[in-house]
Amino acid sequence: MSLYNQDFTISFGDCDPAGIVYYPNFYRWMDATFHGFLRARGPGHAALCREWGAMGLGLMETGATFRAPGVDGDRLVLSIEGIDWSDRSYRVNYAGRVGERLLIEGFETRGLFVYREGRLRAESVARVRELLQGAGAA
Amino acid sequence: MSLYNQDFTISFGDCDPAGIVYYPNFYRWMDATFHGFLRARGPGHAALCREWGAMGLGLMETGATFRAPGVDGDRLVLSIEGIDWSDRSYRVNYAGRVGERLLIEGFETRGLFVYREGRLRAESVARVRELLQGAGAA
Amino acid sequence: MSLYNQDFTISFGDCDPAGIVYYPNFYRWMDATFHGFLRARGPGHAALCREWGAMGLGLMETGATFRAPGVDGDRLVLSIEGIDWSDRSYRVNYAGRVGERLLIEGFETRGLFVYREGRLRAESVARVRELLQGAGAA
Amino acid sequence: MSLYNQDFTISFGDCDPAGIVYYPNFYRWMDATFHGFLRARGPGHAALCREWGAMGLGLMETGATFRAPGVDGDRLVLSIEGIDWSDRSYRVNYAGRVGERLLIEGFETRGLFVYREGRLRAESVARVRELLQGAGAA
Repeated sequence: MSLYNQDFTISFGDCDPAGIVYYPNFYRWMDATFHGFLRARGPGHAALCREWGAMGLGLMETGATFRAPGVDGDRLVLSIEGIDWSDRSYRVNYAGRVGERLLIEGFETRGLFVYREGRLRAESVARVRELLQGAGAA
Repeated sequence: MSLYNQDFTISFGDCDPAGIVYYPNFYRWMDATFHGFLRARGPGHAALCREWGAMGLGLMETGATFRAPGVDGDRLVLSIEGIDWSDRSYRVNYAGRVGERLLIEGFETRGLFVYREGRLRAESVARVRELLQGAGAA
Repeated sequence: MSLYNQDFTISFGDCDPAGIVYYPNFYRWMDATFHGFLRARGPGHAALCREWGAMGLGLMETGATFRAPGVDGDRLVLSIEGIDWSDRSYRVNYAGRVGERLLIEGFETRGLFVYREGRLRAESVARVRELLQGAGAA
Repeated sequence: MSLYNQDFTISFGDCDPAGIVYYPNFYRWMDATFHGFLRARGPGHAALCREWGAMGLGLMETGATFRAPGVDGDRLVLSIEGIDWSDRSYRVNYAGRVGERLLIEGFETRGLFVYREGRLRAESVARVRELLQGAGAA
């Protein structure tokens, strides 16, 4: 069971000269799904950053495996399948399907970044975990 | 009354360092709305091109006026408000709203392009008109 | 004679299933050319906004006419051909060429936006004009 | 020593509300660097596909580690540091730097895809290897 799902209609302009999704768009959609999840569980990224004095829930690492191509008109459902928590980072795992067909498996490893002494630093992600796990679920 | 509406959830990654929608994305969304309309009235762009021996329903001119900024989490409804038909082109008129708030008014002037004698040429758009007007409506 | 030129190598991923540039990318390139011009004449957008207490040199209206398609590998030169100044806005005129071939003519009408009394307002663009015209040229 | 380098000027519009590069753009730039490399060693993707009866040199897997943020005005140099060859795939390794500063390390695992019996299939990449290694280098 997924933690969160978001839908995207794949359009002509998301596709490359081979007629299939230009792959950086899958990362755009993973990121958009994460932000949708943030807004479903709290006030969204901008308000969280103000509240936490943070610069952002930015990326440390991302990756994806492409299983099948997507084309114009496909209804892509991107699911957050789980989150692996560490002290200063968390890995969000995604799967993207069109109907039963698996198009993509991917992940984003994110931190909680603050500016301190003129540098971006990765802080404890305990507050992010509390927000996204809600009542202990996940 | 609009001819067609399509929804987009504005996300963090659609926005620029000022925190508002980076404007080329509005054009992406207009184009995606047009392709959604094509799929609602027929088999979609790729199948139409095969059927008509065409290269595409490409663009001659586009433009937009930005009335108010959009931000992360806004639900944008893009509407095709009308189409002005000429012999070899048609102008699709859009409005984009978040609730009652008008964000954007824009247009795309499109043709029906075929390769002939080594050049892209704009053909009569009668077939496009027939498809998009359906039973004489619009 | 242009005020400023910037080069872009059109790549596979900038193109759509018809194999030609997906048009919102031309707007991305016009915007990037404007920001390159800002950095050539001053400290760039972020520093200017801090200095001027502004939110941004944002957009009021944009438009483009597409004269010829661009493809993978084309070297696009985007030129700022001139700027038309008004009190609270300025229109930046662009032409994009691959060698001698004109691909696009476009414009961006921009303002100087500040937050005041909870709203975005368009201020006098006199400071922008002073910066971009340099020693009275343009 | 890198196999190939390509430059990109990071612009305002490539950045997100945190003011730093929106990460899917790094994948766009890796892909553009690969296509630049293809054009430096041969006739480019479209001509190769025609010649080889292929659909594309598409992606199986990609990933990136983000070391430092990029901002408006940064001159990003993306380098292909090496290629690891297998029978039906090859992994292209990238590093992206602004001056001495390492922004990103990434990879793309690509295949050579053809349509056969109604399905996309990954063929031997021997021809790709021959093209990209040139006179036995790499």
